[in-house]
Amino acid sequence: MSRVIRVAAAQMGGNQSTDSRQSILGRMIGLLEKAAQQGATLVVFPELAFTTFFPRMLLDGSVLAEYFEAHIPSDTTERLFKRARELGVGFYVGYAEQTPEGQRFNTSILVAPTGEIIGKYRKIHLPGSVEPRPNSRFQQLEKRYFEYGDTGFPVFQGPQAWEDARIGMLICNDRRWPEAWRCLALQGMELLCVGYNSAAYDPNGGNSESPELRTFHALLAVQGNAYMNACWAVAVAKAGVEDGAALIGGSCIVDPNGVIVAQASTLEDEVLVADCDLDMCLQGRTKMFNFDLHRRPQWYRRIVDQIGIELPKAE
Amino acid sequence: MSRVIRVAAAQMGGNQSTDSRQSILGRMIGLLEKAAQQGATLVVFPELAFTTFFPRMLLDGSVLAEYFEAHIPSDTTERLFKRARELGVGFYVGYAEQTPEGQRFNTSILVAPTGEIIGKYRKIHLPGSVEPRPNSRFQQLEKRYFEYGDTGFPVFQGPQAWEDARIGMLICNDRRWPEAWRCLALQGMELLCVGYNSAAYDPNGGNSESPELRTFHALLAVQGNAYMNACWAVAVAKAGVEDGAALIGGSCIVDPNGVIVAQASTLEDEVLVADCDLDMCLQGRTKMFNFDLHRRPQWYRRIVDQIGIELPKAE
Repeated sequence: MSRVIRVAAAQMGGNQSTDSRQSILGRMIGLLEKAAQQGATLVVFPELAFTTFFPRMLLDGSVLAEYFEAHIPSDTTERLFKRARELGVGFYVGYAEQTPEGQRFNTSILVAPTGEIIGKYRKIHLPGSVEPRPNSRFQQLEKRYFEYGDTGFPVFQGPQAWEDARIGMLICNDRRWPEAWRCLALQGMELLCVGYNSAAYDPNGGNSESPELRTFHALLAVQGNAYMNACWAVAVAKAGVEDGAALIGGSCIVDPNGVIVAQASTLEDEVLVADCDLDMCLQGRTKMFNFDLHRRPQWYRRIVDQIGIELPKAE
Repeated sequence: MSRVIRVAAAQMGGNQSTDSRQSILGRMIGLLEKAAQQGATLVVFPELAFTTFFPRMLLDGSVLAEYFEAHIPSDTTERLFKRARELGVGFYVGYAEQTPEGQRFNTSILVAPTGEIIGKYRKIHLPGSVEPRPNSRFQQLEKRYFEYGDTGFPVFQGPQAWEDARIGMLICNDRRWPEAWRCLALQGMELLCVGYNSAAYDPNGGNSESPELRTFHALLAVQGNAYMNACWAVAVAKAGVEDGAALIGGSCIVDPNGVIVAQASTLEDEVLVADCDLDMCLQGRTKMFNFDLHRRPQWYRRIVDQIGIELPKAE
């Protein structure tokens, strides 16, 4: 038995602030077409794919508002949805969401090959800070611009064209938190989609990890969690230099053994394709990681009962 | 600032059923001495280090009882404790524990360089089954021979000789469960010790993962969890062929970046040594994995509220 879907990772190079939304959408449609030509029916785009990673800038008012989507699709983004429907390809894409009530989230949606939006996720693990770093050219203001996601970690059942795959979504920093993966796996997730914008080094020139180490971290988090949750994972970067700040690449498709089956070789627009047999999840799920047989939640209470570290009491 | 302790992984080759306890202890003392010669003050031995991995055999009564330790140290194992005190070296060791009340656990202890037992852990994630596989030469009967651990996941503060390191223990299969690592990290664990006996392939000849893939899994679980919990990890195998069943090696010392800093190259008795700077945990713990700032436990409820998979409800 096998349930194979062909999945594409659509890595994007940097989106500059000076790039028009239409030129960015044009590049995304180009990636979509490349993926479709290779037979993919699900294409995964990065986090905040339509714009530059604007949380690195201190903005407000109408300048900030321009980065948000009040409707999805909108008049501007409808092109991407239309082309996907024509090609019979669905996709995951990340964008900055503004609700009718004025709430703002770092959001991703899952769009079926019919064009129907079948899932929405709002990022829970927001990195960065509310207050800007003083005297710094580059910021990380996700906690300022976005509310914490309120969707929990939902799993969506894909259409027959995707072999009824059970699909989970995460966004960027979420992928480093094993709690997020486990909450999805506990709903039978078979395929995880995650887009990201991860700094290659401290853009303010501080002493920090190398781009190579940061890429290693990004791969390790996806490989380790895919293995321990016996699922496929598609992790997709916005890469390269964006408005003067460097982003890692390392987009990859990882199997339920934690093995990388496809990996980006550039920091630019690049499409990776792999056949994902969802039934490969069964080996882990029925043996090593048979949750029913082996999990012992009565000992996991700290995970929900405390937030930060509580040191053991001195004797 | 740095708080460096020199740690050794004391990988062991197979212990055969026909080996005397004294010959096995002699090998362990040899490894201890090698580690001490290289300046290590903490030596990590495997799971069930004093015997063969007896859960692969269907046993009962007095034959089974012989694999258990009613006292630690006992007249037999005191040699190891004595030599360690003489050398000023502490250790982690796994053994089969029988309590005065007759309970049986798969247990590890942490022994300070003074010889004092400063911590005990009883394995929580028991793999295998209660009932034997019919018509199979090799079994995995941990769920039959041991009760589930009742210690939770305690963290122990080491002595000054170990820079007051906060140390956690896991046993074998536990290391593949991110919940276990997180419960330890939430108590400020800086160094994780784990011994294991992991089959290199199905000893009954079934179609299964290769030894290479199983070794990769073992490394990946330790690397991924060390990174995501910003801690050091020392993972130590009983390796090689034991009573006709093959065990993987892959013993390793991993830093808080998830990078392997020392790795076994054999499937035999072998000592690895590395300097572990406990303050390397601070980079992850104060930034990317600052739990206080970034964890969102209100969304992690499934981890404790359910054991197995609950599929999302159909619409």
